[in-house]
Amino acid sequence: MEVPPPLVLKRHMYVPSKTLMGPGPSNCSHRVLEAMSNPVLGHMHPECLQIMDEVKEGIKYIFQTLNDATMCISGAGHSGMEAALCNLIQDGDAVLMGITGVWGHRAGDMARRYGAEVHYVEASFGRALSWEEITFAFEAHRPRVFFIAQGDSSTGIIQQNIREIGELCRKYDCFLVVDTVASLGGTEFLMDEWKVDVAYTGSQKALGGPAGLTPISFSKRALTHIRKRKTKPKVYYFDILLIGQYWGCYGTPRIYHHTISSTLLYGLREALAHFCALGLKAVVRRHQECSKRLQLGIEELGLEMFVQREEERLPTVNTIKVPFGVDWKKVAEYAMRKYSVEISGGLGPTVEHVFRIGLMGENATVERVDMVLSILNEAIQSIKLKAVKTERSKI
Amino acid sequence: MEVPPPLVLKRHMYVPSKTLMGPGPSNCSHRVLEAMSNPVLGHMHPECLQIMDEVKEGIKYIFQTLNDATMCISGAGHSGMEAALCNLIQDGDAVLMGITGVWGHRAGDMARRYGAEVHYVEASFGRALSWEEITFAFEAHRPRVFFIAQGDSSTGIIQQNIREIGELCRKYDCFLVVDTVASLGGTEFLMDEWKVDVAYTGSQKALGGPAGLTPISFSKRALTHIRKRKTKPKVYYFDILLIGQYWGCYGTPRIYHHTISSTLLYGLREALAHFCALGLKAVVRRHQECSKRLQLGIEELGLEMFVQREEERLPTVNTIKVPFGVDWKKVAEYAMRKYSVEISGGLGPTVEHVFRIGLMGENATVERVDMVLSILNEAIQSIKLKAVKTERSKI
Repeated sequence: MEVPPPLVLKRHMYVPSKTLMGPGPSNCSHRVLEAMSNPVLGHMHPECLQIMDEVKEGIKYIFQTLNDATMCISGAGHSGMEAALCNLIQDGDAVLMGITGVWGHRAGDMARRYGAEVHYVEASFGRALSWEEITFAFEAHRPRVFFIAQGDSSTGIIQQNIREIGELCRKYDCFLVVDTVASLGGTEFLMDEWKVDVAYTGSQKALGGPAGLTPISFSKRALTHIRKRKTKPKVYYFDILLIGQYWGCYGTPRIYHHTISSTLLYGLREALAHFCALGLKAVVRRHQECSKRLQLGIEELGLEMFVQREEERLPTVNTIKVPFGVDWKKVAEYAMRKYSVEISGGLGPTVEHVFRIGLMGENATVERVDMVLSILNEAIQSIKLKAVKTERSKI
Repeated sequence: MEVPPPLVLKRHMYVPSKTLMGPGPSNCSHRVLEAMSNPVLGHMHPECLQIMDEVKEGIKYIFQTLNDATMCISGAGHSGMEAALCNLIQDGDAVLMGITGVWGHRAGDMARRYGAEVHYVEASFGRALSWEEITFAFEAHRPRVFFIAQGDSSTGIIQQNIREIGELCRKYDCFLVVDTVASLGGTEFLMDEWKVDVAYTGSQKALGGPAGLTPISFSKRALTHIRKRKTKPKVYYFDILLIGQYWGCYGTPRIYHHTISSTLLYGLREALAHFCALGLKAVVRRHQECSKRLQLGIEELGLEMFVQREEERLPTVNTIKVPFGVDWKKVAEYAMRKYSVEISGGLGPTVEHVFRIGLMGENATVERVDMVLSILNEAIQSIKLKAVKTERSKI
């Protein structure tokens, strides 16, 4: 039996242009998009290694770290989470997952597969973790690894006290893993100063790069621990001693570990270059100002933010309560159909409850904020009107 | 302490254009490169899912399979190897790795990390595995999983009898994993007819797509086994029940598993479309004819192929013995410096012994064969001449 060539591949590929204001990916700039049609380079060619070095320096800057073990995992943001846990965890290790949305649960799923004994500490609904909740859980479980998302994109909550958690982890001889996928660029993050052991971030959010390469960094303390492991990390593909060797992190000759995508490297390199040119502080300030403007606008529209406390709101992914009686899905569909603008619904605990509006990278501008507010309002009014008409037609 | 923005990112990115005739990546066509500067799509947008469906159909065609569980892993070719092993292997399983170069060893490293009891069956130097070697090893180890690279890019050896191995695996209730990273498109591969349980391939070789997405397919038999596992596969990121759900393989609603790179999807989609338009048989024929022409040319230059038996030579990655007294590295450097053409050295058992010349995708043409032959000859003569001059100058 012969399998014939598929008819769908005889047609043109269809890629519409959209304004991506959901939780990510965000839009890439022309500079980034154009970079990705550059010719392919071999994964061991000096020009490719040079770009990797440049990317590495850019990552050190955005994380504010001097860690040698700074590199990318060749995979989605989830692969950063995998690499963090895979390298740190040994069979039977107690690990503690901070929960302010879905990402702590995801990390728990991964850690259990790696043979860890997984505990959770869960914040109250719509709140960041309190100091009491964290210290109580540390005392109860004495974890070897503590995971927390600085910003949880499912709830739009930011965990502000990473610096204090860093101190606490040292006291308990625990490794601190911080997921900055959705937060980096939208809020301060000082990896070294805050004593974070592993941090990773999303390339396709505030950074404005393509998805598929995940910046990650390991502290010297984490690296020493990993070098002393009794067993190899359970996944070759995520083994950061090998990946770091390929990335030239340890002063040893580079050895082929996998074929990196030069295409994605180009895009990420240009995204980092743009980010660095703007400057970290200015980027963070812009994201925060845009979020403030959005929050104000939301209030003016008579809508309500999901996260009650202002200081616990993530500037990059903003969660807004869906008004009573409004179908969020219809609102999102309206915005997409009429304006090609993505407004997203909730995820996990916020499903059906919130809209998520991403203000990241290219989309973190005053103009985009005003635009999305006006579209959101128009969409909600239109859906309400339709609902009323439907009700009336039933009478 | 503040980490300043890196100076290297203030400069322009430098990407030279090269002819990539090593073991991969090979060059992407303009169609593929241009596709990758299309605007980014969300990973759950219908237009993105449509392209994933098209890619899936393309993969079924190139593997000649009707398997539902056909998808991509978001990672390099190595991640395909991981996913194959991670999903099949349970703690303590006996697995057997066929060795005709480096890839069986790599698979062994991965499998051991997953808790398998790993055995190897190694071919004689420069030879494919014989039927006797394989059956003897099956009888001795009674493996649950057998791994073989159809084409081993480190040695340029092709394993021809996959069909017979498929039968053997059924007899022993063993799952057959075939690595077609370097072989697909250069030789026949009939996944269903040959009863292959898991196959994966490289996007950046004969297919001419970008690196970073790895096509993979699981047989119904493998899928049933995976569904019955007592424990979850050890890696969430490689869990094909979850990935397949995202790819819409099982007739269940699509659930977000990770953020796929739409950029890479565009490139792979266009590479597959081109491949399908040419037709599988025509592509294979062209690769084989090019390799034959190269082999003839090599002989005419007074050089020798590394693989003695013609029928055991991989058409895509051709290995040529480095002539006595010639430094392979200087030859490769000459070709790159003067013509921007990549000719590669050996890997693993062939390091220092061979040149590797890739004839894949865009580079599998008569013109490229003649070009690379003429450059190889010029480079070797030039290096020899220099060596003689250096010798003379010592007298």
